[in-house]
Amino acid sequence: MAQADIGLIGLGVMGANLALNIADKGYHVAVYNRTQSRTEAFAAAAGPLSDRITATATLEDFVAAIKPPRPVIIMVQAGDPVDEQIAALKPLLQDSDIIIDAGNANFRDTMRRFENLKGNGPGFVGMGVSGGAEGARHGPSIMVGGAEADWRRIEPVLTAISAKYKGEPCAAWLGDNGAGHFVKTIHNGIEYADMQMIAEVYGVMRDHLNMDAVSIASVFSVWASGPLDSYLIDITAEVLKTHDLASGKPLVDVIVDAAGQKGTGRWSVIESQMMGVPATAIEAAVAARSLSAMRGERAAAEHRFGLPAIVDRREGQAVIDDLEQALLAGKIAAYAQGFAVMAAASKEFDWNLPMATIARIWRAGCIIRSRFLDEIAAAFSETPDVDNLAMTPAFSAMLEATDRPLRRVVSDAVINGLPAPALSNAVSYFDTYRRARGTANLIQAQRDFFGSHGFERFDADGEQHGPWGG
Amino acid sequence: MAQADIGLIGLGVMGANLALNIADKGYHVAVYNRTQSRTEAFAAAAGPLSDRITATATLEDFVAAIKPPRPVIIMVQAGDPVDEQIAALKPLLQDSDIIIDAGNANFRDTMRRFENLKGNGPGFVGMGVSGGAEGARHGPSIMVGGAEADWRRIEPVLTAISAKYKGEPCAAWLGDNGAGHFVKTIHNGIEYADMQMIAEVYGVMRDHLNMDAVSIASVFSVWASGPLDSYLIDITAEVLKTHDLASGKPLVDVIVDAAGQKGTGRWSVIESQMMGVPATAIEAAVAARSLSAMRGERAAAEHRFGLPAIVDRREGQAVIDDLEQALLAGKIAAYAQGFAVMAAASKEFDWNLPMATIARIWRAGCIIRSRFLDEIAAAFSETPDVDNLAMTPAFSAMLEATDRPLRRVVSDAVINGLPAPALSNAVSYFDTYRRARGTANLIQAQRDFFGSHGFERFDADGEQHGPWGG
Repeated sequence: MAQADIGLIGLGVMGANLALNIADKGYHVAVYNRTQSRTEAFAAAAGPLSDRITATATLEDFVAAIKPPRPVIIMVQAGDPVDEQIAALKPLLQDSDIIIDAGNANFRDTMRRFENLKGNGPGFVGMGVSGGAEGARHGPSIMVGGAEADWRRIEPVLTAISAKYKGEPCAAWLGDNGAGHFVKTIHNGIEYADMQMIAEVYGVMRDHLNMDAVSIASVFSVWASGPLDSYLIDITAEVLKTHDLASGKPLVDVIVDAAGQKGTGRWSVIESQMMGVPATAIEAAVAARSLSAMRGERAAAEHRFGLPAIVDRREGQAVIDDLEQALLAGKIAAYAQGFAVMAAASKEFDWNLPMATIARIWRAGCIIRSRFLDEIAAAFSETPDVDNLAMTPAFSAMLEATDRPLRRVVSDAVINGLPAPALSNAVSYFDTYRRARGTANLIQAQRDFFGSHGFERFDADGEQHGPWGG
Repeated sequence: MAQADIGLIGLGVMGANLALNIADKGYHVAVYNRTQSRTEAFAAAAGPLSDRITATATLEDFVAAIKPPRPVIIMVQAGDPVDEQIAALKPLLQDSDIIIDAGNANFRDTMRRFENLKGNGPGFVGMGVSGGAEGARHGPSIMVGGAEADWRRIEPVLTAISAKYKGEPCAAWLGDNGAGHFVKTIHNGIEYADMQMIAEVYGVMRDHLNMDAVSIASVFSVWASGPLDSYLIDITAEVLKTHDLASGKPLVDVIVDAAGQKGTGRWSVIESQMMGVPATAIEAAVAARSLSAMRGERAAAEHRFGLPAIVDRREGQAVIDDLEQALLAGKIAAYAQGFAVMAAASKEFDWNLPMATIARIWRAGCIIRSRFLDEIAAAFSETPDVDNLAMTPAFSAMLEATDRPLRRVVSDAVINGLPAPALSNAVSYFDTYRRARGTANLIQAQRDFFGSHGFERFDADGEQHGPWGG
């Protein structure tokens, strides 16, 4: 058998599907998994693709099976297993080889690994992959960070396996060292916000409009061909119309309302905090998942307080239409914040992140793929130096159009006690952002009063202090 | 001159005032500052207290001037200067001496320093001090972390210099290693939220009710003797009635609305994120400060969008009364979140933090001191194992009483475009917390659909998967 074009380590669902995807595109791939039986099972199930798959039993055999210079994808659990895999590979590889970590690494780990290998072993690329198991098999969105020269060598296979949006590959090199994994983190943070806002709107329909899951599914189905057209809206409709096979009930109604999280939402918030860039819609989504997990406490609180009385019941199609517009406005906030965090990181880490390209490679393959991202790509192409997505002509027009519906939805939710944390934060974000004269003058005065922190005046230069108590 | 009871390094405003406070209480203190002229100026200005102050010119003289076993307070800039000071002191001290870092350290640094010195040099205590310059001079709130035996030795002088609440000292040992600095961090996070919510209410009065600063000051003066009775409400009234000496205008009206921040708010949020505990009121406050600093962007956004139209103007004393109640409800959210973060940290770091004691030592001396904290101390004394402050009898009654006013204030702010991010998050927090059946079932269904993450069912054990698309 000919030597392989590329190697892949780690045959979990994502790794196995990525390997099949590679073989599907005509590349020859060598595979290795620590548990050999999994490698064998994978090879046995590969069917006609097995001609282009070399299953190997040892790491030495694996490396020998790949044509130098070797690209080696590792798809193992994030964290220590990645470091262990690199340590095991390093003595077997040449400096001209490239290790590509395709797992969900924290970008700070990727930066450390990149620096450790620099000039001292094979190249290292941190590659964010989004799209779940299906995406990995048939075309994910691929966000690459590392040396540009390394990207050039692996570009053909990565663009081949990536999703395509109207023929354009959803794979790109985004910058040095941790850029790819950072962008993947923010992708996931935005995904958290997107999902939370969908859940809030679902809550209004379920708990305020008293709609059943199937009726709510119909609403999402309609929205799926409007401005909200996206994978997440599609699957929301799918999920809501799925029935439990045993009981015949809508499946969502028997699913426990405690959401899991794997860390990328939290990382997004922590990094945004470290750079001082508000990401309140994402924070709200992370907090909502954390609160969802406190089921015992929530039950005790409902027992103590009851649910708030509904004092103002607006109903009918007008409310549904408002919800659609509010969701669109909320999305703008979440994406504006996510892109602002990426802009800050780009400066902080000297990445020169290409915002339009990021939006472009998110248009297909990944979980947040949508028509909306095509519009973002266009907006950033037209005004690449804009401070905030909300200030691009297309999105500021959208914001004006959705402003009143968003306010109506959130104020109704607040008065009636329906939780809408992410949508509320979208309103607060815009209202703080669009006001030239805020209220932080009072905060500065207080800080100077108790801590002599000083303040600026409109009519004088330099730090000033008040004549407090004088 | 007799040997000193205690030493203090770093004669900035806080250090100098702390040294004077110590001398005032009858203790003899040796002082040292890297810049000798500052030490001399300090000693020269100490007046009658100079009998109990030994000014020293070298670190060797400083150490020699203190009676062993020596307590040595360092009050230098947080970060590297603390490590440098410890390194310089360590060879001069005995293992029976104690270094007390009274600066604004990140508690993770305090934990590292504590571990480094353990069994390998003097004892190390991390001490949070709140109260600004005035507090340092006449009685701050003192939050101590370190070995309990070290605390016992320094307890007399620390309780002597601390603030007193009805005779009870506002100083306490809270737990091992970083416990004191952690609690100080959360104190500051709560302070951020408290100040932000005051600023939001001020904004409603200024921009919606069109009240001038003096009229708003009168409102805060009235509130200062009600349930909001606190230092921050007092100084808000003070600040708002202070006039600019030059122009005669209210001083707040010439102060630039760009708030500074020094990191403790951000640290609070980052730590809460790492432990998965929602601290959304604090997050909102940090985000609002960050947005306040983006003055150019905000001006451009107002130019583009204008301010939202006021569509529903409620006016008069009823609105003012609602604002007072909303502020009280918002405070409950901020403190509930802050205490929940401390409860999680207490488990995470094995500190066994005494919640009632923390509330007690915050009743005087510190920036957030208030009648409210006396009520929190009582609540945690009565129900020490409660999951959330909101579930204590006293605070759940307060929440019920303030529920409608909070909703009215936030929904009015939202519909009229007045930024109220922290108060909005208070509403969302309670509404999410008090609902037994949330909407995370939809999120779990989506996550299983695209990533096979699994979900729980009400009617079955173990992880389940949906028959999606099947």
